[in-house]
Amino acid sequence: MTTPVIGVFDSGFGGLTVLKALLKQMPGARFVFLGDTARLPYGSKSRRTIARYAAESAQFLVDQQEAEFLVIACNTASALALDAIEEAVSVPVLGVILPGAAAAAASSKTKDVMVIATEATIASHAYAAACQANGLRAVEKACPLLVPLVEEGWVDHPVTAEVVRIYLAELLAEAQAAGQSPDTLVLGCTHYPLLRAVFERSVPEGVRVIDSAEATAAEAAQLVMAGRASEAMHMPSIRCFATDSVEKFERLGSRFLSLPVGKVELVDLGG
Amino acid sequence: MTTPVIGVFDSGFGGLTVLKALLKQMPGARFVFLGDTARLPYGSKSRRTIARYAAESAQFLVDQQEAEFLVIACNTASALALDAIEEAVSVPVLGVILPGAAAAAASSKTKDVMVIATEATIASHAYAAACQANGLRAVEKACPLLVPLVEEGWVDHPVTAEVVRIYLAELLAEAQAAGQSPDTLVLGCTHYPLLRAVFERSVPEGVRVIDSAEATAAEAAQLVMAGRASEAMHMPSIRCFATDSVEKFERLGSRFLSLPVGKVELVDLGG
Repeated sequence: MTTPVIGVFDSGFGGLTVLKALLKQMPGARFVFLGDTARLPYGSKSRRTIARYAAESAQFLVDQQEAEFLVIACNTASALALDAIEEAVSVPVLGVILPGAAAAAASSKTKDVMVIATEATIASHAYAAACQANGLRAVEKACPLLVPLVEEGWVDHPVTAEVVRIYLAELLAEAQAAGQSPDTLVLGCTHYPLLRAVFERSVPEGVRVIDSAEATAAEAAQLVMAGRASEAMHMPSIRCFATDSVEKFERLGSRFLSLPVGKVELVDLGG
Repeated sequence: MTTPVIGVFDSGFGGLTVLKALLKQMPGARFVFLGDTARLPYGSKSRRTIARYAAESAQFLVDQQEAEFLVIACNTASALALDAIEEAVSVPVLGVILPGAAAAAASSKTKDVMVIATEATIASHAYAAACQANGLRAVEKACPLLVPLVEEGWVDHPVTAEVVRIYLAELLAEAQAAGQSPDTLVLGCTHYPLLRAVFERSVPEGVRVIDSAEATAAEAAQLVMAGRASEAMHMPSIRCFATDSVEKFERLGSRFLSLPVGKVELVDLGG
C-alpha cells in the first residue's frame, strides 16, 4: 500500500502543534503543511473572506500536493470555514473543534467545561455549540494576549504565568456566576499547547487540561488508517509551504513542532 | 477658501492617535480616515505586498475621497511603502518616521536615542536610518506585546507596567553595551501613545518620551496650512472607512481618538 499524504492547513504556523501530534499518531505518513502567512491572522476577518482564503488553501493541498486527507489545524478556519472547505475539495476534511469538544465530553464528570481561544474563535461560539451537542455546558473566554506571549518566547515567564492566572480567575468567576462547576479546560487555539505546563500549574485541583491538537490527531489517525495495514516505521516526511514571510515561520516553527521545520517553500495563492 | 481634505491612512485603527493629534493642530480641516483592516497587520507581510496594499489605500483616499494631502499614520507603511504611495498619487504625502526622528533630534542633547516599535518597523531599520540622517545614534527594539496589551484594554495595568519595565531594561542594557547614553525614547508605533504615561513613569530620570504622532501632526499642519488664511473654528469633520471588521474598529477606535469614531463605513479594495 502507498503511504498516505495528509494535508495540514493553518493561517500561520501555530498548526504545527497539530502536525506534531499527527506525527506521533502516524509516524509513517507523508505530511504537507501550508501556512497562509500572507493573509494571517484570519481572526480579524469576515466569515466570507476567511471561507475564500481557506478554500484556496485547501485546493492547493489537494490539487497541487495530492493530499488525500485534510486536517484544518486552525481553530478560526475550523469554526468559520469547514463547510466552505468541504465544498471546495473532494477528500475527507477534519477540523479541530469537534474532536476537542468530544475529548472534553470524555474527560468531564460534571459536564461543565471551560474553553479558551482567540477572539474570532470565541465570537463564533463554535466550541460552545460543539460542547452543547456533546451534552456539555461551556463558558468561553477570548485570551488575546496568549498568542503574542508565545510568539515572544515568554513560555516559561512570570508575566505569562500572571496573565494566565488573571484569565483563569475571570473564567472561573464567570462559570461560578452561571452556577457551573467546570472540571475541564479546553485549549482551543493551536498556540496554547506550548503553555500547557503553565495552565496545568494554574488550574484548580481536579481540573483537567484538554488539548484539541491531540484529540484531533487521534481522530485523524483513526480515519486515515482505517482499513490500512500498519506500516513499517520510518522517518516522517514533512514539506512546509507558506504564502509569505517564511522567515518567521522557520524561526518559530521548530518550537511548535519540536523538530526542525527545515526549508519552508514560498507559494503564491494570490490576494 | 475651502476647508482642506486630509486623508489619513493606517493598516488598522492605531493611526487614530495620529488623527487625534491632527485634530488638535487643524480643528477646521476635514479628515477622511481609512483603516485597511481586511489586510492587517502589514507587519508580517513582504515589502512588495505592503506597497501594493498601501498604494491602493492611498488611491482610494485621493481618487474617491478627494484628499488633498495624505498622512501615512502607520509606521510599517511609512517605513516600507512611502515611495510606492508617492508614486501612486499626485498629492503631498507625509509619513510618521521622518517627523519622529526630527523631533528626537530636537529633544536629544546626548544625540543618543532609543526607538521602540513593532517587529516589522524595527526590521526595516527605517528609524535608525532617519535618526542617523539627523545626527543621532539609535538603539532599536521590537516590542510585540504592547499592541495586544493596548487592544486588551490593559493600559493602566500591573502586567503592562512589568512588560514595559522588562523591554526598557533590555533596551537600556543594549544602549549601555554600545557605549551610548540615551536621553530620548521614541514611540514608533501608533498604539504606543496610549501607554505614554506608563513609559514616562518607567524611563530613567532625564529621559524624554517623544511621540511620532504629535511630531507628524505638527509637520502636517505646517505643510497644509502654509499660505492658507487661518479659519474660523468649527466642529471637526471626520469620516472613517475600513476594509473589513468595522466592529472592532468602532469598539476600540474611540479609545485611540478620545472621541466617538461614529459609524465606520465598509469599503472593498479587493484582495
